[in-house]
Amino acid sequence: MKISDTHYRTIWPTAAGSVRVIDQSRLPFEFTTVDLETLEDAARAIRTMVVRGAPLIGAAAAYGLALAARSDASDQRLDQAARVLQATRPTAVNLAWALRRIRAALAAARPGERVEAAFLEAAAICDADVEQCRSIGVHGLEIIRALAGPAGRRLNILTHCNAGWLACVDWGTALAPIYMAHDAGIAVHVWVDETRPRNQGAALTAFELGAHGVAHTVIADNLGGHLMQRGAVDMVIVGSDRTTAAGDVCNKVGTYLKALAARDNRIPFYAALPSSSIDWSLDHGRDIPIEERSAMEVTHVTGRTAAGAIETVRVVPETSPALNLAFDVTPASLVTALITERGVCPASHAGLRSLYPDREATP
Amino acid sequence: MKISDTHYRTIWPTAAGSVRVIDQSRLPFEFTTVDLETLEDAARAIRTMVVRGAPLIGAAAAYGLALAARSDASDQRLDQAARVLQATRPTAVNLAWALRRIRAALAAARPGERVEAAFLEAAAICDADVEQCRSIGVHGLEIIRALAGPAGRRLNILTHCNAGWLACVDWGTALAPIYMAHDAGIAVHVWVDETRPRNQGAALTAFELGAHGVAHTVIADNLGGHLMQRGAVDMVIVGSDRTTAAGDVCNKVGTYLKALAARDNRIPFYAALPSSSIDWSLDHGRDIPIEERSAMEVTHVTGRTAAGAIETVRVVPETSPALNLAFDVTPASLVTALITERGVCPASHAGLRSLYPDREATP
Repeated sequence: MKISDTHYRTIWPTAAGSVRVIDQSRLPFEFTTVDLETLEDAARAIRTMVVRGAPLIGAAAAYGLALAARSDASDQRLDQAARVLQATRPTAVNLAWALRRIRAALAAARPGERVEAAFLEAAAICDADVEQCRSIGVHGLEIIRALAGPAGRRLNILTHCNAGWLACVDWGTALAPIYMAHDAGIAVHVWVDETRPRNQGAALTAFELGAHGVAHTVIADNLGGHLMQRGAVDMVIVGSDRTTAAGDVCNKVGTYLKALAARDNRIPFYAALPSSSIDWSLDHGRDIPIEERSAMEVTHVTGRTAAGAIETVRVVPETSPALNLAFDVTPASLVTALITERGVCPASHAGLRSLYPDREATP
Repeated sequence: MKISDTHYRTIWPTAAGSVRVIDQSRLPFEFTTVDLETLEDAARAIRTMVVRGAPLIGAAAAYGLALAARSDASDQRLDQAARVLQATRPTAVNLAWALRRIRAALAAARPGERVEAAFLEAAAICDADVEQCRSIGVHGLEIIRALAGPAGRRLNILTHCNAGWLACVDWGTALAPIYMAHDAGIAVHVWVDETRPRNQGAALTAFELGAHGVAHTVIADNLGGHLMQRGAVDMVIVGSDRTTAAGDVCNKVGTYLKALAARDNRIPFYAALPSSSIDWSLDHGRDIPIEERSAMEVTHVTGRTAAGAIETVRVVPETSPALNLAFDVTPASLVTALITERGVCPASHAGLRSLYPDREATP
């Protein structure tokens, strides 16, 4: 995607052997990049959400393992490095998937070619992600086109958190169909849930939609239900950090509430996801571990002061505790359909099997 | 209620003829009071949410009209003053109700005794509110006691926004049963929705529960659904800014989403309200005007910096618009029961009529 007419991916290798990423913790107020030189740099970038979003976390972990291999490509060191990376974000299934891919590439490579093999595989993961997101966009575009109808009525689409290109390597998952609809001349307007506690909607989704010229309005997470009751929402599209083999969708906390409201108001609710986020070993969303993050993300808010400084303010009394669980599970029964890189399918075992007959659920 | 062992109401007349209120826009970081001297002071205090909460808005409007009468008790001036006050917060029905009571008291008073009559009536409105909230607490306590069972199991109660004593003159509506349960030795823990965009939960509910010693945890508004799925919520109690004759509940935006999640997880959902918040003329919640407030409440957040200053930070890109509708409507079908000062009843015409047979719906 473009920012000020320059095409960017969210992560890419530099000629100097490091890995460059957009520092998303500074957005929307500062657009800067950070160079990752070591495993520790990569792990910190994931943990502190310099990079975030399930597909981008996978890509960053892949490069993190490649960076670890550069300093020591022994199996022992790589085992340890994979554990460090896996521990950064326990809910995202792409992370484990990307690490497995790099490990397999390393195992297949000749000694002396391991580092190069790891970097090539990380680049391949990134290229595949871009292609997957593009395909998700193409399939999702057909849904939007059908909803807009032959008269091309203006559509209001609600999204939660950031499943845009900033969450991926390019295009995004939930936002890819929206960008393609916009580019195809369909009038779309996006209700952007601010997505407390980290405000990824307010900070990132609003930023990237604005940069691309897509009409949008930021709302408190609380408002979506009322807008649906009023008939001001035509569809909901969200991403997925982990999808079970039965179609349960684990996504940013609050997604479930929007799915309930969509059902109550007969509004279609879609989850857009690459198949790398499907956990074929899980049948029930309740078995997905839910990441607990720092209570400070609830008690404090970071933004820009009128004077232009980035400042963090406390909004909760000093003596009040807070709890910060980052995800929730939307049961498949609330999901109209899943939009994947291979097409659109019902959120069910049978639906997913119809698109991925090559995948077998592991018991 | 007490703060640092001193008993407070949220509003009271001073010996000097002004009206003193707690400045809730400075909480939870500064506990200060403000003196209202004129109609304009009162209107500004309501508009800028120095005072907020349906019952307290009614009390403040009543005193505001009394202050207006002190400068000019002519019918023309009072008509105008009532219009100014009514326009401050269009959704709260107590406001119109309180203004009607003061107008009636003024009309019945002899010339020369009008100002005194208005202040006496405002004080009576405050005393009646305290007694109503106490009664709501007594009735709600029985529900909590039954849920805790003979073994007195620990209860997790979720609440949205602030319907505590800060929203009223004393006790609160939704929180009155919780204070009474706590005082009766029942182990209660409250999940406090932070309540974006103005954070009344994080700032006010957390403050007053903490001041009273009630165990509580602040959460993002997004988390309540997941906690209900996990079995970590035993009941929900919210307030109501306006209740229709059919039992639809108009309360702070986001309430509807929690009611949907409560139904989906078979958790009882109660609205606690004084009968002054019932709009007997309305059958359908969709006919309630929903207040639109400044987009800045969404785009900016106010809190305390590490250095101790109160600072406002922007969290949304400069170029992104925001929409800020302050309320939503929870249909009666999602409400387990209404807790009123006369007792507990189904959220329905028949339920409300059983408690208020003296009230007739006006067409």
